[in-house]
Amino acid sequence: MDTTHSLRGYGGADAYLRNCPSRTVLDVLGSKWTVLIVPSLTSGPMRFGELRRRLDGITQKSLTQALRHLERDGLVTRTVYPTIPPRVDYALTPLGEEASALLESLRAWAEDHMTDILTARTAYESRPDPLPV
Amino acid sequence: MDTTHSLRGYGGADAYLRNCPSRTVLDVLGSKWTVLIVPSLTSGPMRFGELRRRLDGITQKSLTQALRHLERDGLVTRTVYPTIPPRVDYALTPLGEEASALLESLRAWAEDHMTDILTARTAYESRPDPLPV
Repeated sequence: MDTTHSLRGYGGADAYLRNCPSRTVLDVLGSKWTVLIVPSLTSGPMRFGELRRRLDGITQKSLTQALRHLERDGLVTRTVYPTIPPRVDYALTPLGEEASALLESLRAWAEDHMTDILTARTAYESRPDPLPV
Repeated sequence: MDTTHSLRGYGGADAYLRNCPSRTVLDVLGSKWTVLIVPSLTSGPMRFGELRRRLDGITQKSLTQALRHLERDGLVTRTVYPTIPPRVDYALTPLGEEASALLESLRAWAEDHMTDILTARTAYESRPDPLPV
C-alpha cells in the first residue's frame, strides 16, 4: 500500500494490507486501556489521579503511556494549569468523542459475553487431548 | 470482584475492576488480529493458508496463536478433515458471528479516521517542546 496515497483520502485505507497505517490505529483503539479511558472521559475532563482510581489496578506507567498514545493520536487533550502543584486535565477531542460510543459497545459486549467466554475457556482447557495438525 | 458470582450472571461483569475476567475478553476482542480474522470468516469457513493470505503480512506464529485464542474463547471452531494431507477449516461459532459486526465497525472506524489520526501524530511529533509535568 502506498502510504502517501492513503494520506490523501479515506478510500486508500485497508487494514488487511500489511503497510496500511490503519493497523496502527487498531492497535491503539483495541487496547484494553483505550476502551476503558475514552468512555470514562465522556462526562467531562478528568485528572490523572481520578483516571487512575477509575481504572482499578492500572499502573502509573501504563496509564501514562496509554494517555500519551491517545494524545498523540488526537483522541485526548492534555491541559496543564499553572497552579502549585500544577493541575493536569485530560479531555476528549471531537475525534475521541466520536470513538467513544464504539469503544463503549466493545466493553459492553465483553462484559455481556464474559460468562459465555469463560465457559468456552473451561471447556477448551478440559478437552481430552489436542487435535492433530 | 467475585469471579464465582460473575460466572452466574452478566450483572457481575465490570471491566473497570482489576480482577474482572471481562478485561481478558477485551484483550482478545481488541487484538488487531481478532478484528481482522473474525469478520473474514463471515462469508464461510477458511483454511489456515487462506486466512494467512487474507491477513497480509501476518506470521504463521501470530496467526496460529490468534486462532488458538479465538478457538479457546469460543468464537471460532477448528475442524480437521482426515484427508492426506489433513485439511483444517476455521469457522465462526454463533458467538463469533455475533462479535463480527462490532469488530467490523472497529476496523471501519480505524480505516475511516486513519488520515485524521496520522495528521494528529505528525502534529504531536513536531510540537515545539514537551509540556511540563
